[in-house]
Amino acid sequence: MGLAGLRIVLMEPAGQINVGSIARVMKNFGLHQLVLVNPQCDPRSPEALMMAVHAKEILESAQLVATLPEALHECVRVIATAGRVSSWETPLENPRTALPWLLEEPEKPVALIFGREDRGLSNEELNYAQRFVRIPTSENYQSLNLATAVGICCYELAQSTQTTETPTLAPNNLAPWDVVEAYYQQLESLLLKIGYLYPHTAASRMEKFRQLYNRTHLQIGEVAMLRGILRQVEWAVNQSNYENL
Amino acid sequence: MGLAGLRIVLMEPAGQINVGSIARVMKNFGLHQLVLVNPQCDPRSPEALMMAVHAKEILESAQLVATLPEALHECVRVIATAGRVSSWETPLENPRTALPWLLEEPEKPVALIFGREDRGLSNEELNYAQRFVRIPTSENYQSLNLATAVGICCYELAQSTQTTETPTLAPNNLAPWDVVEAYYQQLESLLLKIGYLYPHTAASRMEKFRQLYNRTHLQIGEVAMLRGILRQVEWAVNQSNYENL
Repeated sequence: MGLAGLRIVLMEPAGQINVGSIARVMKNFGLHQLVLVNPQCDPRSPEALMMAVHAKEILESAQLVATLPEALHECVRVIATAGRVSSWETPLENPRTALPWLLEEPEKPVALIFGREDRGLSNEELNYAQRFVRIPTSENYQSLNLATAVGICCYELAQSTQTTETPTLAPNNLAPWDVVEAYYQQLESLLLKIGYLYPHTAASRMEKFRQLYNRTHLQIGEVAMLRGILRQVEWAVNQSNYENL
Repeated sequence: MGLAGLRIVLMEPAGQINVGSIARVMKNFGLHQLVLVNPQCDPRSPEALMMAVHAKEILESAQLVATLPEALHECVRVIATAGRVSSWETPLENPRTALPWLLEEPEKPVALIFGREDRGLSNEELNYAQRFVRIPTSENYQSLNLATAVGICCYELAQSTQTTETPTLAPNNLAPWDVVEAYYQQLESLLLKIGYLYPHTAASRMEKFRQLYNRTHLQIGEVAMLRGILRQVEWAVNQSNYENL
């Protein structure tokens, strides 16, 4: 288990103080890769650098990208953090239980996503992840400061590298994020074509499929199998169409 | 075990942002008693109140005292936090191991002491405590931000009061075995029809699909959704065939 391949992904962070504090706490716990998606503040502002103290290099080497998919490029395991979530059927797990799973493929890129300070992640953004964590809080005040949430998760990750290793599933070949995403895209376009989905409801229905498949932690061979079916269905549907010409 | 009698004691805190953030994270994790020993900043300044967000009452009710012994008045158990400590022979413990000890006397006052941002606690101050914790950090950067350290300790305290409940799927509607089986049958016959499966290999290939879907613990609504897709594919394939007649 190792922290080297782990990306901390911040979705549209707006607070310079938060971003600087996050760089510091990442270095405190041995993490180095920070990715900012469409940041709403300057991550190299004097305030951010001041809060980073001796972790300025993490801000300086932080990757800035425009979209969440870019931030997740090639990641084989993705966890998203969530606060209160309505209309979400996948279970929210405790960080202590779920986060060590990110460290089970030490050579490969993995990501932990944090939402915006004010409104977290949208359901669409959550759907890019395979597991979801929520830091348990008092019911009287559930909203954690972003840097606090990142700090607690970094602490848990570092703690989990020190303790006895949790038994893992078989040495598996989990499908990278982009491969699974390509399957969803192919599925959606086929379902539109055969009239199962309608353009105006496709997104919400696809959300349910994403939740179902994300839960399974698809392996590379399984995605290939699922895509093979889609190709065969396309072929069967098209062939008849050609015959009609 | 309860958090009600627990005091968070800050020794000469100098950062308003830190004090405000600490109030917030205390409330997030169900703690309410904040004691400031000879503070070097105004704990009710606009900056502090801004960082506290919805925990302003913790700043307003914070007790300000001149000396550490006053802050510890009547406490039956006291733990101090330490960073790097030289010439200190008592062992530094992991917060996860040591902090629950504070909560074993729920009716009585207990305290957790944090040192100054820049130089922690003196040996004399440490000597007021019975146990000592140190949050394990990377050797490359050991110095945690004060609010981060308090946040992690509050999180650990709150975690230790919870009976370890693993979050489960909501009281859900798991599909009965026969409903799932009917889906597998329908899938198999469609895949044979469109030429994805061949009769002599169908069984072994279907095994892989069964493994994939069994892993997800399909719900009733999800099986209905998956079967809806199969019906639509059948329709799309058949329709063209009828047109060919």
